[in-house]
Amino acid sequence: MKPILGITMGDPSGCGPEITVKAFLHEAMYEKCRPFVVGDAATIERAAREAVKRDNINVRRVSSVKDCRFEPGTIDVFDLHNVEGSKLKIGEVDAMSGNAAFTSVTKVIELALAKEIDATITNPLNKEALNVAGHHYAGHTEIYAEFCNTKDYSMMLVHGDLRVVHVSTHVSLREACERVKKERVLKVIELAEDICTNLGIKNPKIGVAGLNPHAGEHGMFGREEIEEIIPGINVAKGKGINAEGPVPPDTLFPKACGGMFDIVVAMYHDQGHIPLKLLGFQYNKNTGSWHTVNGVNITLGLPIIRSSVDHGTAFDRAWQGSANESSLLSAIEYGALLAKGNRT
Amino acid sequence: MKPILGITMGDPSGCGPEITVKAFLHEAMYEKCRPFVVGDAATIERAAREAVKRDNINVRRVSSVKDCRFEPGTIDVFDLHNVEGSKLKIGEVDAMSGNAAFTSVTKVIELALAKEIDATITNPLNKEALNVAGHHYAGHTEIYAEFCNTKDYSMMLVHGDLRVVHVSTHVSLREACERVKKERVLKVIELAEDICTNLGIKNPKIGVAGLNPHAGEHGMFGREEIEEIIPGINVAKGKGINAEGPVPPDTLFPKACGGMFDIVVAMYHDQGHIPLKLLGFQYNKNTGSWHTVNGVNITLGLPIIRSSVDHGTAFDRAWQGSANESSLLSAIEYGALLAKGNRT
Repeated sequence: MKPILGITMGDPSGCGPEITVKAFLHEAMYEKCRPFVVGDAATIERAAREAVKRDNINVRRVSSVKDCRFEPGTIDVFDLHNVEGSKLKIGEVDAMSGNAAFTSVTKVIELALAKEIDATITNPLNKEALNVAGHHYAGHTEIYAEFCNTKDYSMMLVHGDLRVVHVSTHVSLREACERVKKERVLKVIELAEDICTNLGIKNPKIGVAGLNPHAGEHGMFGREEIEEIIPGINVAKGKGINAEGPVPPDTLFPKACGGMFDIVVAMYHDQGHIPLKLLGFQYNKNTGSWHTVNGVNITLGLPIIRSSVDHGTAFDRAWQGSANESSLLSAIEYGALLAKGNRT
Repeated sequence: MKPILGITMGDPSGCGPEITVKAFLHEAMYEKCRPFVVGDAATIERAAREAVKRDNINVRRVSSVKDCRFEPGTIDVFDLHNVEGSKLKIGEVDAMSGNAAFTSVTKVIELALAKEIDATITNPLNKEALNVAGHHYAGHTEIYAEFCNTKDYSMMLVHGDLRVVHVSTHVSLREACERVKKERVLKVIELAEDICTNLGIKNPKIGVAGLNPHAGEHGMFGREEIEEIIPGINVAKGKGINAEGPVPPDTLFPKACGGMFDIVVAMYHDQGHIPLKLLGFQYNKNTGSWHTVNGVNITLGLPIIRSSVDHGTAFDRAWQGSANESSLLSAIEYGALLAKGNRT
């Protein structure tokens, strides 16, 4: 059977409802999975009508996964009744919307932990809205970590064949330097190995970045490579993992794009995010907005699958019909792929 | 008159002589400048014969700039007799080669400071070879800084329309965090403004990167944006400079590529180098080598023009005929452009 995917609505004040409806219009999606939405059914219905300008989309309200029919042309919504339509503030940070985003996420996690679904797909939420709603998390990843009771997780970004996992993400650059420790480097190399295996890549080649320019140039520009990264790589190699590095950060990414590595271990947020977004995002200065925002964000180390869009709520263009669903489609495709890998 | 460009030979054990000969085969180059080589004439002659496999290239030895004829099909070499051919070790770190690279650089600086030439173009040298030859510099930039008696310089990398100047370069990432200071940020913004003006870009839009992920997210992930970068930008704005930021580092580069900024101020080496090399370098895993290495490296803040290739000596493939001259051609083109801008 095709895997069942629960897709959160995201922050309803943002682009989530619109790109969700647009994604469901790609009926080829049903060939790879059985998708449904977790959130507010009336909001999805309204997004179809007002943002996507389609009257012929059938939104089916369900209150359990087993009621879903997964029929192309129809959007099954696990209805949480978490948006009061008349109070919805479009394009704004708002407590009701932050709460709706949060409850959609916790529900989808609950369904996955209960094994009612095979993977969770998340639409963007807004951190500020989450906080004004009283939910104090830095983002999705932290919600997942808490509700799944997981400590050793890592963010993976994917664009095409370029996959990057991160030793740290949402901390200052100074703190990121502190977090480059042998044990953590090893853990992230292992997570990288696991996810590649899950994706069907045998004996994956893992390129491990240095922290410093030129990977420290033998200790001239920093010693983290010598004291933490190389020891971590050596333990991984001892376990039979095909890890190589530390590779100078600026040549690692073109090497990975050229096929030398199946996955990259980045030492900090921007080391991995800069190349990924450069490849996946295209900005249009005439419209002052993103033309395309490709890329998938996967949380590794969880007991459940989480695949996500790689962009924000885009409040400035929410509900205008111009939001692009390509990152969500990629997230859905990756979620289906990982769910399949989990079974084999 | 077209600007006169002195091109160093680079480390003769590396790819410099070969790519220099190849560059001179592009006769269109003479339409924009009057180029000649500074280094060892016999080595250039040998590179033409042995690496490029051409017998019909005429190498003319000169001992002063005024003797150069700048004729297509001929390579004028300001002959320093700094390589003993029988002792040349190809593809190796060697003191004679390091010394030859060094004396070629200091001579070209001398000619530029004496205003005998309009710009200097550098081929790659090897830092280790430089050091075993007794010249203790981290690289070209430091040699130029000392011989030009300059302290406030900055490295600019260019690929196509993407230009990046750096607040710091060859220091550890921890030290790079320390170097993000208001005065330095302001200085580099000013250098960015100057170079754009020189390139004919009026009122250039300067995108200033944050240091931390999400540009610190209002102080949640680091305070350098609040304490140093924003104050630096504000002083620049007060001087009428069109600087904007701090922009989250991972979205800044696709925005710049989309035309939103004419130049980017990066806070550390890899923040600028990762996107530039991702765009300019292509790796071929089958040959295990770089397919293309595009990009130009310009040193800003000097009293003379210095434009350079953006790659190393490539010892592993030196003198084999497979080295690519495209970065050198770009460096020559940029040097000519800047020399022209200096006059207007």
